Amino acid sequence: MAKEKKLVQEITSMEEDFAQWYTDVVKKAELIDYTSVKGCMVIKPAGYAIWENIQHELDRRFKETGVENVYLPMFIPESLLQKEKDHVEGFAPEVAWVTHGGMEPLQERLCVRPTSETLFCDFYQKEIQSYRDLPKIYNQWCSVVRWEKTTRPFLRSREFLWQEGHTAHATAEEAEQRTIQMLNLYADFCEEVLAIPVIRGRKTDKEKFAGAEATYTIEALMHDGKALQSGTSHNFGDGFAKAFGIQFTDKDNQLKYVHQTSWGMTTRMIGAIIMVHGDNSGLVLPPRIAPTQVMIIPIQQKKEGVLEKAYEVKGMLSGYRVKVDDTDKSPGWKFSEQEMRGIPVRIELGPKDIEANQAVIVRRDTREKIVTPIPELEQKVAEVLETMQKEMLERARKHRDAHTYTAKTLDEFKKIAEEKPGFIKAMWCGCQECEDALKEEAGVTSRCMPFEQEEITGTCIHCGKPAKHMVYWGKAY
Amino acid sequence: MAKEKKLVQEITSMEEDFAQWYTDVVKKAELIDYTSVKGCMVIKPAGYAIWENIQHELDRRFKETGVENVYLPMFIPESLLQKEKDHVEGFAPEVAWVTHGGMEPLQERLCVRPTSETLFCDFYQKEIQSYRDLPKIYNQWCSVVRWEKTTRPFLRSREFLWQEGHTAHATAEEAEQRTIQMLNLYADFCEEVLAIPVIRGRKTDKEKFAGAEATYTIEALMHDGKALQSGTSHNFGDGFAKAFGIQFTDKDNQLKYVHQTSWGMTTRMIGAIIMVHGDNSGLVLPPRIAPTQVMIIPIQQKKEGVLEKAYEVKGMLSGYRVKVDDTDKSPGWKFSEQEMRGIPVRIELGPKDIEANQAVIVRRDTREKIVTPIPELEQKVAEVLETMQKEMLERARKHRDAHTYTAKTLDEFKKIAEEKPGFIKAMWCGCQECEDALKEEAGVTSRCMPFEQEEITGTCIHCGKPAKHMVYWGKAY
Repeated sequence: MAKEKKLVQEITSMEEDFAQWYTDVVKKAELIDYTSVKGCMVIKPAGYAIWENIQHELDRRFKETGVENVYLPMFIPESLLQKEKDHVEGFAPEVAWVTHGGMEPLQERLCVRPTSETLFCDFYQKEIQSYRDLPKIYNQWCSVVRWEKTTRPFLRSREFLWQEGHTAHATAEEAEQRTIQMLNLYADFCEEVLAIPVIRGRKTDKEKFAGAEATYTIEALMHDGKALQSGTSHNFGDGFAKAFGIQFTDKDNQLKYVHQTSWGMTTRMIGAIIMVHGDNSGLVLPPRIAPTQVMIIPIQQKKEGVLEKAYEVKGMLSGYRVKVDDTDKSPGWKFSEQEMRGIPVRIELGPKDIEANQAVIVRRDTREKIVTPIPELEQKVAEVLETMQKEMLERARKHRDAHTYTAKTLDEFKKIAEEKPGFIKAMWCGCQECEDALKEEAGVTSRCMPFEQEEITGTCIHCGKPAKHMVYWGKAY
Repeated sequence: MAKEKKLVQEITSMEEDFAQWYTDVVKKAELIDYTSVKGCMVIKPAGYAIWENIQHELDRRFKETGVENVYLPMFIPESLLQKEKDHVEGFAPEVAWVTHGGMEPLQERLCVRPTSETLFCDFYQKEIQSYRDLPKIYNQWCSVVRWEKTTRPFLRSREFLWQEGHTAHATAEEAEQRTIQMLNLYADFCEEVLAIPVIRGRKTDKEKFAGAEATYTIEALMHDGKALQSGTSHNFGDGFAKAFGIQFTDKDNQLKYVHQTSWGMTTRMIGAIIMVHGDNSGLVLPPRIAPTQVMIIPIQQKKEGVLEKAYEVKGMLSGYRVKVDDTDKSPGWKFSEQEMRGIPVRIELGPKDIEANQAVIVRRDTREKIVTPIPELEQKVAEVLETMQKEMLERARKHRDAHTYTAKTLDEFKKIAEEKPGFIKAMWCGCQECEDALKEEAGVTSRCMPFEQEEITGTCIHCGKPAKHMVYWGKAY
């Protein structure tokens, strides 16, 4: 037992130090490694396989709505970045600059894309002439660079992977519709696949994307009560179109500006999975996103027939992503590893089980043991994975609801902010002074104005003037 | 007829000007667009969809051999790039340098990866301690940057997409085996999926990868008789391991250096598909790689029942990638577009066909028309796609063989090099002086020393000393 406990003991408990627990899990589950490049990470096979599943599932959902994939350059000439005023102000302080190509200095320096609005605009300006060229519903999968000062694996790093959708439409209505459609797509994906419940809403003007008319967001609550912005969808109106001169001749023969959107989701969702579902034994992966869904662990595998049976069972489960751990480690060590890596289900199978024509299914999240006759294994595994997926979402939702508070007075607001990590729902007048003051006085930021509004009180929690919006507030990653 | 001819007339004929024909096809088939970023391209939906199919098929084949995907940073600190002497000499002249992050100059400048050997070595140096950690069979899909002076769409651009596999092994034998295995995987992929026949062989020392002990290559012949290096696989021996100190404790308790390989294939394969299969009507895509395999074009689509029947036929072909062109363009224009885009098969379907319960299948490559009863469409389409795939490979092979010449004397060699575009097979003594001289005197480079050696003469084509290798020579992209 000493040996198998060791792996687990190497991770800090989340109650003791959540940040350290997170870093430990990221390392011990072999998701990531640090590199010689400051602020940049290696995404290792176990981490990248999760991203591949995220990509696969998102890409499928995108294409069902008519999205086409493209690839644009990773470099943006400085003059292009500067075309939209708010946008350059938002991003210029945190871009990496290429100044030399080979041995020679460049005539104009290039930044490594922090996001590609300006490149898509430059592209669309040439591509779009007529209403017949619209809409453009393009997306790219790529990496982007933002020169962050402090970094954390998956959550904030100088380079990260994402997809960025960029669309152009003939009308404002169509652009708004696409913006909301993609936000809902992200929300459904989070809930159905990652088992992460999210609040859907709109960002305040202060928190919106540099250059956007409106930014919509989905906000998730991590186990420690901090919020994580999990996906955003921006409506640019015709602001970029005017800055870049993207015009088309409409059916009525009038020259008009296009309306644009962009929307993105990143590798930080792997961080969200860890912080929503993980426990003190490591990662817990929702079955639908798990690269390996079932790990078969033979007991006394050197005894005749055990390994054969393990592979026979694997063959029975061909509809799932199944592995057999036939390494020469002890079963206990293998259990710890499977738990650390968050594999949803393990099947224990030893000589006595084989004699009784049964196996033991163990759920990663509840650790429930289910002795199952081998002929019924396939059906039982299907059932367990389905139940686990559902219950993980429910558990996360309960946790979030239990950590969502309502404040009616400023004192109450401050007290909650200080003592109870989680979301605070409170009314707001809509002015940035109050938003700034709440950050200053209570240390929280506005997460979003949720689509599902409630009227808690009639007045702003800070200034007492008539309230315009109910807002989710919180501390955020 | 005037209108439908127009689209085709916009491309230069390949006999007139092959380079211009290529550029025209790339633009008119909507594969690529130029950008404000000099030397960088936009890969448009029709081009990117081909790359997605290449990725999908290669990735599946990789994983069958045990490859795992990872992601490493796009930046390489200058000191890291310099660790392996030959490598830095090969790449330093053509890298892009990042010198500023945000508003501040960097302490050490970073290059944007031109290839990631140095990063993988840095990573492996920390990851590998014991023989138990071996082998590492990692790959990444990413973009790389090489600051080329002259660029051409897909064939040579400052940024391109590729995969780069990087492996580490306990023994030299295992590394060599993996190097050859991946070269054969590339060759099979080219022949089976892209219908491009390739010569498998080894590069001369002059042409090998910077830092490699041996570079293996597959070489394809384009329609104009120029060669295209289509995939390479490198065996590094323990050169990089020694430069980076990648050591492991072997089973015999001895500290040993690992043996490494790397192998890559890029978006230039899209250029190869164009230049091997294209014709004067545009692109011709092999069915297995075509994003759309069948385009159904309704004739007189406004007549009752025509569009319904077109969609019914699409439903019958659910095993294939099928679209219906129901735009309001003329059928002739649609034919031209389908041909320009290289969609392997079109199905023409009009009121008279429907009355006769038939449709007309037209093959893109041969333009053969096959009148087919509708109930037999599915089987016939399957047959036509299969035949077309096979015949495209055969046609390309015949073309290559017809443009492969054998030279026994230097005069003969020079005459072929001057007059007959294609491969020249000739014997070589193995010294770089003769290789350099043949480039100087005949304008060709060594493409590879093929695995299938023949003895044409006993002596080097240039110096007359005893020959060591039969070499394929040619002009290359």
